[in-house]
Amino acid sequence: MAEASAAPRITVERILNPRSVAVFGASDDRSKWAGRIMYYLALHGYAGNVVPINPRRQVVQGKKCYARIDAAPPVDVAIVAIPAASVPATVRECADAGVGCCLIISSGFAEVGGEGVAAELALAELSRRTGMRLIGPNCLGLINVLNGMALTSARVLEVDKLYRGPIGIVSQSGAILLSVFNRAHDVGIGFSQLVSIGNQADLEVCDFLEHMIGDPATRVICLHIEGLKDGRRFLELIRRARKVGKPIVALKTGRSASGEAAARSHTASLAGAYAVFEAACRDAGVVLVDDPDVMVLAADMIARFGPWGAGRIGVVSSSGGINGIVADRLGDIEAPLARLAPATQRALGAFMLPSHLQNPVDLGARRQAAGDAAGVAEEAVRIVAADPDVGVVVVPLTTSPNYEATATALAKGVVGCGKPGFIILTPGSVANGVRAIVKQLGCPLCNRIDDGMRLLRAYRNYAPSPSHDGDGLPASRKGAGQAMLDLSAGYLTEPEAKALIARYGIPITRERIAGTRDEAVAAADAIGYPVAVKAVTARVVHKSDAGLVRLALADRTAVAEAWDEITSRLAALDPAADRVLVAEMVAGELELILGAKDDPQFGPVVMVGAGGVLVELLGDLQMALAPIECRAAEVLLRRLRIWPLLDGYRGRPRLDVGAAATALACLSRLAADLGGRLSELDINPLLVRREGSGVVALDARAIIT
Amino acid sequence: MAEASAAPRITVERILNPRSVAVFGASDDRSKWAGRIMYYLALHGYAGNVVPINPRRQVVQGKKCYARIDAAPPVDVAIVAIPAASVPATVRECADAGVGCCLIISSGFAEVGGEGVAAELALAELSRRTGMRLIGPNCLGLINVLNGMALTSARVLEVDKLYRGPIGIVSQSGAILLSVFNRAHDVGIGFSQLVSIGNQADLEVCDFLEHMIGDPATRVICLHIEGLKDGRRFLELIRRARKVGKPIVALKTGRSASGEAAARSHTASLAGAYAVFEAACRDAGVVLVDDPDVMVLAADMIARFGPWGAGRIGVVSSSGGINGIVADRLGDIEAPLARLAPATQRALGAFMLPSHLQNPVDLGARRQAAGDAAGVAEEAVRIVAADPDVGVVVVPLTTSPNYEATATALAKGVVGCGKPGFIILTPGSVANGVRAIVKQLGCPLCNRIDDGMRLLRAYRNYAPSPSHDGDGLPASRKGAGQAMLDLSAGYLTEPEAKALIARYGIPITRERIAGTRDEAVAAADAIGYPVAVKAVTARVVHKSDAGLVRLALADRTAVAEAWDEITSRLAALDPAADRVLVAEMVAGELELILGAKDDPQFGPVVMVGAGGVLVELLGDLQMALAPIECRAAEVLLRRLRIWPLLDGYRGRPRLDVGAAATALACLSRLAADLGGRLSELDINPLLVRREGSGVVALDARAIIT
Repeated sequence: MAEASAAPRITVERILNPRSVAVFGASDDRSKWAGRIMYYLALHGYAGNVVPINPRRQVVQGKKCYARIDAAPPVDVAIVAIPAASVPATVRECADAGVGCCLIISSGFAEVGGEGVAAELALAELSRRTGMRLIGPNCLGLINVLNGMALTSARVLEVDKLYRGPIGIVSQSGAILLSVFNRAHDVGIGFSQLVSIGNQADLEVCDFLEHMIGDPATRVICLHIEGLKDGRRFLELIRRARKVGKPIVALKTGRSASGEAAARSHTASLAGAYAVFEAACRDAGVVLVDDPDVMVLAADMIARFGPWGAGRIGVVSSSGGINGIVADRLGDIEAPLARLAPATQRALGAFMLPSHLQNPVDLGARRQAAGDAAGVAEEAVRIVAADPDVGVVVVPLTTSPNYEATATALAKGVVGCGKPGFIILTPGSVANGVRAIVKQLGCPLCNRIDDGMRLLRAYRNYAPSPSHDGDGLPASRKGAGQAMLDLSAGYLTEPEAKALIARYGIPITRERIAGTRDEAVAAADAIGYPVAVKAVTARVVHKSDAGLVRLALADRTAVAEAWDEITSRLAALDPAADRVLVAEMVAGELELILGAKDDPQFGPVVMVGAGGVLVELLGDLQMALAPIECRAAEVLLRRLRIWPLLDGYRGRPRLDVGAAATALACLSRLAADLGGRLSELDINPLLVRREGSGVVALDARAIIT
Repeated sequence: MAEASAAPRITVERILNPRSVAVFGASDDRSKWAGRIMYYLALHGYAGNVVPINPRRQVVQGKKCYARIDAAPPVDVAIVAIPAASVPATVRECADAGVGCCLIISSGFAEVGGEGVAAELALAELSRRTGMRLIGPNCLGLINVLNGMALTSARVLEVDKLYRGPIGIVSQSGAILLSVFNRAHDVGIGFSQLVSIGNQADLEVCDFLEHMIGDPATRVICLHIEGLKDGRRFLELIRRARKVGKPIVALKTGRSASGEAAARSHTASLAGAYAVFEAACRDAGVVLVDDPDVMVLAADMIARFGPWGAGRIGVVSSSGGINGIVADRLGDIEAPLARLAPATQRALGAFMLPSHLQNPVDLGARRQAAGDAAGVAEEAVRIVAADPDVGVVVVPLTTSPNYEATATALAKGVVGCGKPGFIILTPGSVANGVRAIVKQLGCPLCNRIDDGMRLLRAYRNYAPSPSHDGDGLPASRKGAGQAMLDLSAGYLTEPEAKALIARYGIPITRERIAGTRDEAVAAADAIGYPVAVKAVTARVVHKSDAGLVRLALADRTAVAEAWDEITSRLAALDPAADRVLVAEMVAGELELILGAKDDPQFGPVVMVGAGGVLVELLGDLQMALAPIECRAAEVLLRRLRIWPLLDGYRGRPRLDVGAAATALACLSRLAADLGGRLSELDINPLLVRREGSGVVALDARAIIT
């Protein structure tokens, strides 16, 4: 019998602002982990009570040392960086001594499998039973810049000063967190709080995310996530963050995970865990990135400047050569160069050669009277930034004569230009002096062109207001609701799946089931020729490949022959099946695939993509959490690579986008109603006809649990 | 009347190994350009005669100074870094004084347009007339590491020592060259010679490329190219480099150039200048990159290790977090992780936890008895590298306890593992000590994950032997050759263009031209129903959109009606046209587009891509210089994204790849024969049928000049 859970002894707020911190294994030796932790707490000015624990010391780094935790004064947070084997006993002692939270740096728990898993479960159980919170194990600690509490042993803390800033980070990986912290410090980006959460035995990403959403000192939140403990809570929190206007930039690993279970449907195989995570994040306005350093660069950009707003890219550089490369790279990420207005060109013309008044602007092409680049650089940046078509200013800087002066002028230009902007420093160590200048002037800085491009991509994806209503939930949820409960579990045959989607208003082909040859012919007569005849079977997934589909049958004879052929093949493949579906033939312009499934973490999702043979070839898919309204469904269609084919491409007719969007919204309601019962459902293809002529589902299948 | 050209006074070899160098404006003041040039020549041990030129000095930096060049001893190379206005007179004096070559750093010439163009032309003319060679103007000089001749004023030369190495660089941009040099120096990569060529008024990229192909000290050549003076010479040289086994890594800007003239055909609009350059380079085995620093990293990798060979990626890292990110990023570039063999896993199992024997290997998951990461890191790298499925070892390194020791062990592992490999250092300045260690151990190093991924992409594209015969020229050139001379210039109508391709053996639809309604019906009778009827017009490009095409006409009445409709529409659109084409209807599985054109720089090229509506939507195109043999044509088809549709995708029938490749090879011969007369030619679509059933061109058009 499990003991009851105890109320938490301490809030996350208090964990990040503890009145007292205990350090196990405390030492005067800074080559040791606990020695450095003691040192960094002092170095960065933590004002709370620091309590060294070490049976072999009386005093450590000037503080009275205690042999055991139960002999020490009350402790809010105890930090445990000792061998894994000693952790359980120490943590138990902490729990007994009334410690609020144990921060466990030690590794060797669930991440190593086997006994480690059991040991971690025991820690989690202790936490649940006692109310003592845990951070980690297998983390690298946390840093609260606001109160100088640097609770980690990492040498990246060997800096004069922690820069205070509006960015909070929660990172599953401690190594990533510290690497990122160091790069950010190098370019002058500051933080509110940085937390590495490790294995999340107790406190997890959502706990700290929730704290930071409420923390006024944190204006932008960065997340590094490997796995979520609770997808629905995460979803609720990112939606709350959007509601209160707190931007989130997230890096999720496992994008390329190939561990999806073998799936019977396209939807299940294409809508992997990351795709659903991405859809959830996009829905809530979370900016997704692929690089941990760019995560922080993007957060800094958002914190400084807010959203990008209108406008394209203006480039001012020290070299025509680097301009050429940057222009190409902007092309690669589809970030177009601004077209400078005549007034901008006139202003530049005061010191630039008339041949060189285009974007990107090459400061090498100055009028001779303008003197060296440093003299005009600041002005050039301001002029370009002031152009109405410029939204963001990018300043690539190679080595340059009079380097420091030129860099100073450019950095001042970027900082004072009134628009978002940053410098990209291309050289290596020769630019270190310039790096220090740019940092001191508070100018955003990238050290590689790649970083600049990734930053632009991330920044462009930040939009503070939702692209559709509210938090992604529709105003009304229509559909067949409770009526769905009569669905029996298992694989739905084509007519069953079509009947299900038809109840949600998705048009399907006119069709009849026939159990004899005569019934098939009569059905065809009633529907009108030509018709399609297909086997009704729950056992054969790819009916066409198995010869169980005959199309464009023009008369009774053809239908009768089709009956004979299909039923004889069916006898071998699925002896229990003895019926065929007779359906009208429908012509249309474009095939889409629509899908829906219940994701174990985020619940019902809906998907749309290029259909037919292009499904897997193009991987042209968009996904959203269900349900969605028609307007949001159309946004998904517009994001498809094949959107031009829907929108009247090169003189072709525009197709019925409204009907396609409605079908997708209807499917999303079905998914929301069925919830966890919907294992997977494909409509493939949904045939889209010309504008005004609607859509028709030609085939469908589903698995209900 | 132009004076005759004079023979060159000096070879490129001698320019790079001059017996004497003159420096205009020579000064003791190292804050001045010429002062630094003097200083760097001494600092890096140039052993030739250095001749300062300055009317206001007797001695400069310990060397006898001359008032004028004509008073100085004989000079091989004079370096001119003075205001543009003074350049012409100074260069003239050099020519008169018998100087071998002027290296003109000064800018303000062709790159600024207007008078600058005229001034540069005058310099070029002087060079042609006198035989004195020019480098620049608007360059930043050159460095010959082999003889210590650092002929530039750039502060990147303020290093103890120039690292000698097997890489030569020719760069159009001086700023890029120097930035790249600095980054390379930081990670310990050395060079043979580095040349910035600027405006190429006389000596150009090909002159130095040719030199480096013959230079035994240069084993890999890097090129930064903005524009080529002579595409055919470049082509000849890159083919020669491949023949003699000298790898080239090139960065060409202008990839996204949008300046292509409005084109009537797909080929002309899709086969932009960069696409043709890319095809030419691919044909000759040149490795193309997008980033200047990665150009050198890739050259270093090639110089150290030769080609990648077999095998996938093995990853050994200090952190599970970074492993997750690197695994995802490898997925993005389609560089798969190796699958470790049981023997490898057993070897790792001696010190790694049994749960962590997969690739990527996380050194965090050591057995406790294995001690810290440093103790096992070298061994882990060696074991992973020894796995037969591992071709390249990547070692991402975050911050880490016992950082220097761990980094040392990892770097030793990479250097000694016997396979290509490199370290990616993710932190910033906290890793500077580790950077120095890795450099000193001679281990290849990237400082960003992006650089590592770009490096892998570039390195994977290096293949020393051609993928098809010889230098890309086919063994035999068949075709209609001289017979083509009877083609008249202008736009070819569909039947004319089809007749042309048919002469080269490309199958076309059975078809007849009809000038009356009765002829149209008779033609259809002869061909057999159903037929297509299309207007024959040179004025309307998109015939379908203009209602000038009727398809699938089933009988005489339909053909007669089509005649009436099309000719009445045609009367308004192209009054001179009065004929229709009656053609058989052909069914097939897949549409391709084939194209050919004559490129102004590289001559005839041929192109193939996904046809129909996908042409511009997918941009799925491959291109090669013409002519090509069938085998090379099939290689192009295999590179298409839609290749699976040709190859029998998901149980679909395999299509007639052989016939498609043959058609492409035939078209390439046509392009080679027509040469400059072929402005552009499209076959769109070429219908591909099932294997054994061939291909057929349904439509074609061409412009002959």
